[in-house]
Amino acid sequence: MSGLTHFDASGAAHMVDVSAKAETTRIAVAEGFIKVDPETLEIIRSGTAKKGDVVGIARLAGIMGAKRTADLIPLCHPLPITKVTVDIALDDALPGLRVTATVGTAGRTGVEMEALTAVTTACLTVYDMAKAVQKDMEIGGIRLLSKTGGKSGTWKAPAR
Amino acid sequence: MSGLTHFDASGAAHMVDVSAKAETTRIAVAEGFIKVDPETLEIIRSGTAKKGDVVGIARLAGIMGAKRTADLIPLCHPLPITKVTVDIALDDALPGLRVTATVGTAGRTGVEMEALTAVTTACLTVYDMAKAVQKDMEIGGIRLLSKTGGKSGTWKAPAR
Amino acid sequence: MSGLTHFDASGAAHMVDVSAKAETTRIAVAEGFIKVDPETLEIIRSGTAKKGDVVGIARLAGIMGAKRTADLIPLCHPLPITKVTVDIALDDALPGLRVTATVGTAGRTGVEMEALTAVTTACLTVYDMAKAVQKDMEIGGIRLLSKTGGKSGTWKAPAR
Amino acid sequence: MSGLTHFDASGAAHMVDVSAKAETTRIAVAEGFIKVDPETLEIIRSGTAKKGDVVGIARLAGIMGAKRTADLIPLCHPLPITKVTVDIALDDALPGLRVTATVGTAGRTGVEMEALTAVTTACLTVYDMAKAVQKDMEIGGIRLLSKTGGKSGTWKAPAR
Amino acid sequence: MSGLTHFDASGAAHMVDVSAKAETTRIAVAEGFIKVDPETLEIIRSGTAKKGDVVGIARLAGIMGAKRTADLIPLCHPLPITKVTVDIALDDALPGLRVTATVGTAGRTGVEMEALTAVTTACLTVYDMAKAVQKDMEIGGIRLLSKTGGKSGTWKAPAR
Amino acid sequence: MSGLTHFDASGAAHMVDVSAKAETTRIAVAEGFIKVDPETLEIIRSGTAKKGDVVGIARLAGIMGAKRTADLIPLCHPLPITKVTVDIALDDALPGLRVTATVGTAGRTGVEMEALTAVTTACLTVYDMAKAVQKDMEIGGIRLLSKTGGKSGTWKAPAR
Repeated sequence: MSGLTHFDASGAAHMVDVSAKAETTRIAVAEGFIKVDPETLEIIRSGTAKKGDVVGIARLAGIMGAKRTADLIPLCHPLPITKVTVDIALDDALPGLRVTATVGTAGRTGVEMEALTAVTTACLTVYDMAKAVQKDMEIGGIRLLSKTGGKSGTWKAPAR
Repeated sequence: MSGLTHFDASGAAHMVDVSAKAETTRIAVAEGFIKVDPETLEIIRSGTAKKGDVVGIARLAGIMGAKRTADLIPLCHPLPITKVTVDIALDDALPGLRVTATVGTAGRTGVEMEALTAVTTACLTVYDMAKAVQKDMEIGGIRLLSKTGGKSGTWKAPAR
Repeated sequence: MSGLTHFDASGAAHMVDVSAKAETTRIAVAEGFIKVDPETLEIIRSGTAKKGDVVGIARLAGIMGAKRTADLIPLCHPLPITKVTVDIALDDALPGLRVTATVGTAGRTGVEMEALTAVTTACLTVYDMAKAVQKDMEIGGIRLLSKTGGKSGTWKAPAR
Repeated sequence: MSGLTHFDASGAAHMVDVSAKAETTRIAVAEGFIKVDPETLEIIRSGTAKKGDVVGIARLAGIMGAKRTADLIPLCHPLPITKVTVDIALDDALPGLRVTATVGTAGRTGVEMEALTAVTTACLTVYDMAKAVQKDMEIGGIRLLSKTGGKSGTWKAPAR
Repeated sequence: MSGLTHFDASGAAHMVDVSAKAETTRIAVAEGFIKVDPETLEIIRSGTAKKGDVVGIARLAGIMGAKRTADLIPLCHPLPITKVTVDIALDDALPGLRVTATVGTAGRTGVEMEALTAVTTACLTVYDMAKAVQKDMEIGGIRLLSKTGGKSGTWKAPAR
Repeated sequence: MSGLTHFDASGAAHMVDVSAKAETTRIAVAEGFIKVDPETLEIIRSGTAKKGDVVGIARLAGIMGAKRTADLIPLCHPLPITKVTVDIALDDALPGLRVTATVGTAGRTGVEMEALTAVTTACLTVYDMAKAVQKDMEIGGIRLLSKTGGKSGTWKAPAR
């Protein structure tokens, strides 16, 4: 199948063989957002400052979500993750929360899926905690920002 | 904290007590999409028809992802899910794939998070399988379409 | 697709809707064996009696495996299991170990897969613990013996 | 206990120390089958060709099962798997489906259990999907075909 | 075996059959502590007030740990937990942190293990986060405070 | 935050970057106990000798618990564990059971949390199995005994 490496010549899915790849330091950065009403954002902001820390819990869920990636994504290799950061910024212009996740490994394949999974898990957790006050929030803009390391080297998302 | 039920009066996070809630049939429907290049969509389409079934694998990952929701979302109740469907449609106008998930339970709390998690897991799986041919795909439009059952009854997303 | 309930009319896989099914007591019994050399069986027997309890560990692994069924089998419903027993008998005539698992639930669908998963996990665990002394062991004869409860009622495996 | 390395001198179970072993490329291949009625096989075959892809789902479940091995088998080391393929062939002579799994790692211990777990998970998944049309299917013939790599080197199953 | 219900008459472990038990509301409360140096406690306190929220993260880990109980404790029944709270108090007299967990279910068996697992997971998480400044912290005093519901009714720990 | 490496300069939690650390052999040893009534201890002792092997099951649960550490402790790195032993001694003077766990890895960070998690999981499992005969058992004395390997080298708990 032209280019889709997760399938063999007959079209059967497989976990790609990375045995011969070098163990190098690899980093992936992904981002996304959850759009919420200004009132919801205000509740989240006041909680984060004082009590009811939505942002702190979503950050932690994102970090833990990165560790679950190979459980969730069928053909993803299990990897010894060596670093995860999840940054969450409140954005009045959106309005909503912007999430950026950075994941590192010293492994044989990249951690793009881990970074993307961290972002979506953090966004879903915000949704879960704010859904009592707003149900029509929307999660979007989930994309890879950059990856470094490995044979294919560095890739950066085109500027917007 | 005003309205955020996942926090007690002091702002400490907790898993909300649903012991006294009735076991009723509850359904939640969520949607989302992954935007891909027309060339990528063509590769996915040809694979789905013949071999290298991206859509079938993403659907399965979405169904399995719904079962993992309480593992991923910190304050989510574990629930005996009784139904999951994940529909994936190829959309040339997007261009990309549109995912809709329907989750049911006969439990004490809703399955909104399960439906949203099914959608995001299916989208992430498409990303994983197509990333060898395109890295700047984008996942978005993830939102709840409707929920029924439980004390708060039926909710439908406002028309767009 | 004629008869395969895990697929809808278009052939797409789904988790079957059991929301409307009654919560009844359901029991499933499954069996299987692992064939080993007489020398291996002797080592296992002496360990079980005195120390190095292969049978006890395999039994525990089978019980825990039953709890993992919905994680392993993609379209299986998560169920509140209410009972698991795993019996393991040493059989000189085989020669090998015969495993029988009984699983119960008070749920909306059957526990056949849980019983079968308990049997295979127990057999795999025997293999793991004995593989240092024999590599050509063989696991087989894994089948459902009976199921009771639910709308389809009682089923018993035909006599052999 | 003579030869059973999973037990110490007193008979207590432990996870064997492999810290000092070299990280080498290791491959294990295992096989097994599920025997089904000719009518069941026909239903599976027609589904695989057109819709209701039993084989594709069983293959995916086998691949994901390999990743779960250390969760299921108590004394198994967690390993960074670097390759999994699961081949499933329809065999009219059996009649049934023959499953072969190949697992690779660049780790400190072998992946025999991962290959065997992939095979059994794939067979169990076929059972799950076909059990609405036939309950007396039987899973068997699960055995290691070969292993390579590591201090003990290459092992091949004796010809049959 | 006299009184140990997790074993049958022959001494084989099993998951106790609770199929016939009534689904009642059950609550269990457990406590424990982690003893730390006054300097460590001061660091944790200042972080909790301002930033670096050790207490918030340990609370969340405790809640999530309760959901993992049936994965960790071999003969524990999986249960639909309906409520978890984890209270963490800083105690200068100890000096250290005191953890109390309350878990509820509407199930067929009690949630004592879930409450105890929540407490230990919260304490372990404090250890993990403070171990860069102190390694000789000690976790102790982990015990059940009370349980209510079910056939055996209410039990309260004797006063100290 | 002074010294707490799990937080960045702004106080946000992260998984510490260990990508640049060397893969060295690391060992951690932890201990703990569960205090039980002399009668309970006698029941456990008689079972361990003959049948109803509480100690064997708790040991296995401890070993498996070590493999679950990164699932339970939010900021813990997933690590390829290379060795786990769990020793459980019956102590009439306590009275109770003393648990010591030793965990090894050839990884980029230490296994202190894995050793502590093995100890607590083994103690919780004893509680689970003996709770039908005694509810006021107490788990305590959980602490690190030593760690070796890594940049910070060897640490030993002060003598008591």
